[in-house]
This record gives sequence, structure tokens and C-alpha cells, in this order.
Amino acid sequence: MKAAVLREVGKPLQIEDVQINKPGPHEVLIRTAAAGVCHSDLHFIEGSYPHPLPAVLGHESAGVVEAVGSEVRTVKPGDHVITCLSAFCGHCEFCLGGRMSLCVSPETKREAGEEPRITAATGPMNQYLNLSSFAEQMLIHEHACVAIRPDMPLDRAALIGCGVMTGVGAVFHTSKVQPGETVAVIGLGGVGLAAVNGAAIAGASRIIAIDMAEGKENMAKAFGATDFICAKDKDVVKEVIEMTKGGVHHSFEAIGLAKTAEQSFNMLRRGGTANIIGMIPVGQTVNLMGAAFLGEKRIQGSLMGSNRFPIDMPRLVDFYMSGKLKLDDMISRRIKLDQVNEAFTEMKTGAVARSVIVFDA
Amino acid sequence: MKAAVLREVGKPLQIEDVQINKPGPHEVLIRTAAAGVCHSDLHFIEGSYPHPLPAVLGHESAGVVEAVGSEVRTVKPGDHVITCLSAFCGHCEFCLGGRMSLCVSPETKREAGEEPRITAATGPMNQYLNLSSFAEQMLIHEHACVAIRPDMPLDRAALIGCGVMTGVGAVFHTSKVQPGETVAVIGLGGVGLAAVNGAAIAGASRIIAIDMAEGKENMAKAFGATDFICAKDKDVVKEVIEMTKGGVHHSFEAIGLAKTAEQSFNMLRRGGTANIIGMIPVGQTVNLMGAAFLGEKRIQGSLMGSNRFPIDMPRLVDFYMSGKLKLDDMISRRIKLDQVNEAFTEMKTGAVARSVIVFDA
Repeated sequence: MKAAVLREVGKPLQIEDVQINKPGPHEVLIRTAAAGVCHSDLHFIEGSYPHPLPAVLGHESAGVVEAVGSEVRTVKPGDHVITCLSAFCGHCEFCLGGRMSLCVSPETKREAGEEPRITAATGPMNQYLNLSSFAEQMLIHEHACVAIRPDMPLDRAALIGCGVMTGVGAVFHTSKVQPGETVAVIGLGGVGLAAVNGAAIAGASRIIAIDMAEGKENMAKAFGATDFICAKDKDVVKEVIEMTKGGVHHSFEAIGLAKTAEQSFNMLRRGGTANIIGMIPVGQTVNLMGAAFLGEKRIQGSLMGSNRFPIDMPRLVDFYMSGKLKLDDMISRRIKLDQVNEAFTEMKTGAVARSVIVFDA
Repeated sequence: MKAAVLREVGKPLQIEDVQINKPGPHEVLIRTAAAGVCHSDLHFIEGSYPHPLPAVLGHESAGVVEAVGSEVRTVKPGDHVITCLSAFCGHCEFCLGGRMSLCVSPETKREAGEEPRITAATGPMNQYLNLSSFAEQMLIHEHACVAIRPDMPLDRAALIGCGVMTGVGAVFHTSKVQPGETVAVIGLGGVGLAAVNGAAIAGASRIIAIDMAEGKENMAKAFGATDFICAKDKDVVKEVIEMTKGGVHHSFEAIGLAKTAEQSFNMLRRGGTANIIGMIPVGQTVNLMGAAFLGEKRIQGSLMGSNRFPIDMPRLVDFYMSGKLKLDDMISRRIKLDQVNEAFTEMKTGAVARSVIVFDA
């Protein structure tokens, strides 16, 4: 089968012919239907987070189950599934405490040095974030996917697999936005737009969307934003505090920069919560005014939207089918696997919400 | 009546003869029985936080109601009461949302420029933190005190009024420590010891007490600590992470320094919560590694233990009467009002847990 491989940091992905194993007892072989091109992939390509190489990238996908291992109980051949990199063990402190996205048990994770599931002519490949979705087939742990209703279009389902779960989940689970509260979202890529959309579903009274690109205003409002601030020539903290008479209840940083993380904290009202969704590069420090903690302000990380994806993703599918979750407009471009590098080039310009690789059926 | 007055930043308090008004409709006149000498008073004396002067200091007290205004419904003459600076309005977003300690409604607060309740020979005095407890009588809003059972000794009740509520409340309310979770407390003054004690009451499995003073180990253990680290010659972050195999669920910074705030964040396990109880001086910044947010770590302020004091303080009294809350050992010295400056001098050496001013009956 074909797969997009990262062999060297900073270089384009290479489309290669690779072999994939048969499922082990708890594994699932999936024919990939669609895979989103996410900003986190770019972090690894650029090397701001390390990963063992060579690796097949991609971690936001949906597909159809082809085969399952002898012990698999949660999906069966023919099931439509969304994958999730939060491959949970199901019996650790985090899994049983309602915070399965924090599970670090190696049992269900793909780790360097394991027996490889994917092999190229040159030798074994590393799997990426427990998935490796930029490939015609995926061989993953059964706890890295969930079955969904078959009438859900798989290209849009793929987006739920990472960016949408991350943005919506930060609103629902990490920060627990309540109806009538106020929200600000900094950065309107796929994740930020999903956070805006999540805030709208959760009944937030005011949703202030913030981005450097003026052109994103219409899109933000289509996703449920009540207000838009172009950060290019505005003091966003001052603006948000004025607009909300003292600051927002919840803010979401969806870029991954120390500076915007600080802004997200500084725009809170008393008792408010800032959520860092973006991956801030290793080495950057977030500098906060110590005295601000007196107002019981809070800043916290949100990993993959604090998901419990087997519960959450079928609900998000229902939200899409009932018209509440906007996915159609989030896909700006459908591409083939061999166009994946174009998607990353375009992502760097900040112009595109989401490219999705669609595989031949 | 006599009161201890701050006339100039950096100078000792002066004991002066002052006049106090009769209660307005919602006011309560209290004969002060005891007042704790708290580190926050020192912050204001030293000017790290500003306050309009001259002012009668003191904000941790208990006493007996002498007279009440025409509209007062919650206490009556003869009631024993604990005061609390969290004078709540009872009808704002914070009060009705279960977070009354964040109330900023001016309605129940003492603000500069109001008609003064206390007057010296030189003119009007400012009231301090809605209370002014370093005085033989206090005239406060009825929403700044709560009646308690009459068999509770008032010198120990006074401590509940600020330091104990702040430390225990940070554990119970701000961070919501669950039975079996692990806790670290940095700084073992009155507030830190109360946090240790609160963690013990809440059933924490491991309570690591941290202080620069080696001599505090025994006291920490008497309050419920399972472990003690002398921070003088140890890398406390490394120690805590090793002792707990990855970090604590909850940490509490009870000093008010950026450096220890950073430590409290760095010693968390994945998904853990750091609570800043101390007042970090204006201008100090807390510098956090941005990538640490990926583990869903959280850092938040705790103001007065996120108290709902009319509910909480009677419960804390019961905890004392049943032997769970340690107050006897927290009082290191009982003094007269005119010895208040000695207490501050001693506090700066770090040696004393708590001095309490006891007034003549």
C-alpha cells in the first residue's frame, strides 16, 4: 500500500510503497477513507517536537474496518470508524478517573523499538501517534478507534478524529463552558474554529473569535462567533476586557505560542479559565503576572480536548447530522495522498482551514 | 477604644484611642475577643500591596456581637462570631454561582472615601479589608461575620477567620482534593500548616510538607504531613517527583513568591493542579514551561480558600471540637494589642507559626 513517510526533519514527505501486518489479538486493520492534514503534523516535520524516524505521519482519520484480531470486542469488519491518537489502556488511574486522554500506559501505544507493523523496502517504519493515517491502510489498537453510524460521510468524520474533538472537547470537558458564559478563542485554524463551534453548541452568550487574518471574520461567524477581532493592529487583551466588561469566563489558545498563551490568561475576568490547546514549542516560557492569581484566575493545558472519545465522537457525529456541528465549511480542499506536501505549504500561509486527503474507495 | 494604626508604610503600628460609630442598618458592632497576626498584614505594612492610610489593620478575628443594625437578620447581640474579610453582597454572579469569595460588589465593602466608621483625634481612619480587627471593637457589614457555637474558644476561632479558612479552603474548594490523592505544600506558616491539615482531613494519601526551616518537621507532622522536605539544600521539585513517582495531584504555594509558584507547577503529575495561595508581590512574573501544558497541568489562584464562609466556618469549628482541626498548636504566642509590632518582627524571622492578640474581656 501507499504511505506518506517522513524520513528527515525539515524535508517533504515521500510517498512510498510499504507493507502492513495482519492484526494481532487486540488490533484492527482499517482501510483509510480520509485523513485531515493537521498543524501538529507540521510541528513534527519541522522538528519542534521530536519523533523517531522514518515514520508514516497522519493522525486524523476515518475509515472502514477490514479485519480485527481475535480479542477485539468493540468493532467488527465493515464498521465505519473514526480513529483517535488517544489510545487508552482502560485500566489506569487516568482511564478510570474520567481522563483517559492522559493515559500513558505503553500497553496500547505504538512505541519505538517495538515489533514494527509497517515495513518499507528500506526496513521498518515507526508508527506516528499510534495511528499513521497518511496511508491507504492503518493497523491500530482497538482502543484507538470507535464505530460510528454508517450514514456519516467519512471525509467529515475524519476531522472529528483530532482537530474537532480537540477544539470542542476543550470547551465541553477541559473548561466546562456553561450556557450564558463568555468565551474568547485565539487562532482560527481547524481547532480554533471547532472551539468557536463548541462554544456555540454549549450555549455561550458571547464568543469572541481572534485571528491575525482579517479574512477569517465571515468563517468565524458561520461557526458561531458573535464577535471578531483582527489581532494584527489591535490590543486584543484590552479589546476583550472592554467588550466583556472585565474579561471572559473562558479563553482558548489554539495556536501554540507563549505570547498568545499569556494573552489568553490576561483577558480573563475574576475566576476565569484559560485553556492552552496549542502545542507551545519546547523551550518557550509563558510569563504570567503573579498578582493576577489573587483573582482566582486559572490557566491549564487541554490535551486532545480532554476526550473520552468512544463516548464523545458518536455524539459529535450526531451534532453534525443535526446541523449543529459545522464540518462542511471546515474542509477547504480535498486532495490526493501525493498532494500532502502542498497542504503543508499552504498551511504555513495561514490561509487554509483544513485540507483533507481522500483515498480511493 | 484602642486600635493599632498604620500611618505610614514601613513604620511600626501605633496604638491610638479612636471612636467607633453605632451600627447602620446592615452593620454589626462586635467586641473583639482575639485577632491573629497574619502575614498579609505585613505585606501592607511593607507596601508590597497598597492601602489608603491611615488605617486600622487586622483581618483575622473572633468576638461577641454587642449591637446590630435595624436590618440585620443573621446575627444578634450576644452571638459569638468569626469575622471574614470576604464581605459578600449575596446577589452578584459570584455570590450566586457558589464563588462568593470573588464578590467585588462595593455594597458590602469598606472603601476609601466612604463615610468613616472609625475616627481618631487626627481625623477619619480607613477600615482595612472590611474589618480592622486590631481594635477593641469592630463595626462591620453583617455579611462579614458568621455566628458559631458558643463553646468554641474565641482565640482559636479567630484563626479560622483568615489563615485556616484560606489553607483548608484551598484544599477543599479550590483544588478539591479527593481521598487517596497526593499533596505537596510549600511554606509552613499558618496558611501552609492549615493546608497540610486540610489535606489530612480530606483523606490525602501522601502529604509532603516543604519549608526552608528544618525545625518545622515535627509541627508539620503533627498537622498531618506524611513527609517533610527541607528546601534549604534540596531540589524540591526533583524530590517530590521521585517520592510520588511522577509528581503530586495537588500542590499549594503558601508563601507568595514567583519561584515557589513555579516549583508548585513543576512538581505536578499529568493532570495535576497547582494552587497559588500566597500573595505574589505586584511586578513578579511566574515563568512556566509552555510545553508542560500538554500534560493538562493547571495552575490557579486561590483567594481566601474559595470560601463560602457562612457555610464553611461553622464546619471548621466542628472539625476543631472533634479533634480533626489542629488549632491549639498553631498559636505560638498570645499577646496584648500593644505587643503587635513584636509579632511582626518575629514573623520576619520565619520562626513563629501564629501570634494571636487576646483582648481583655
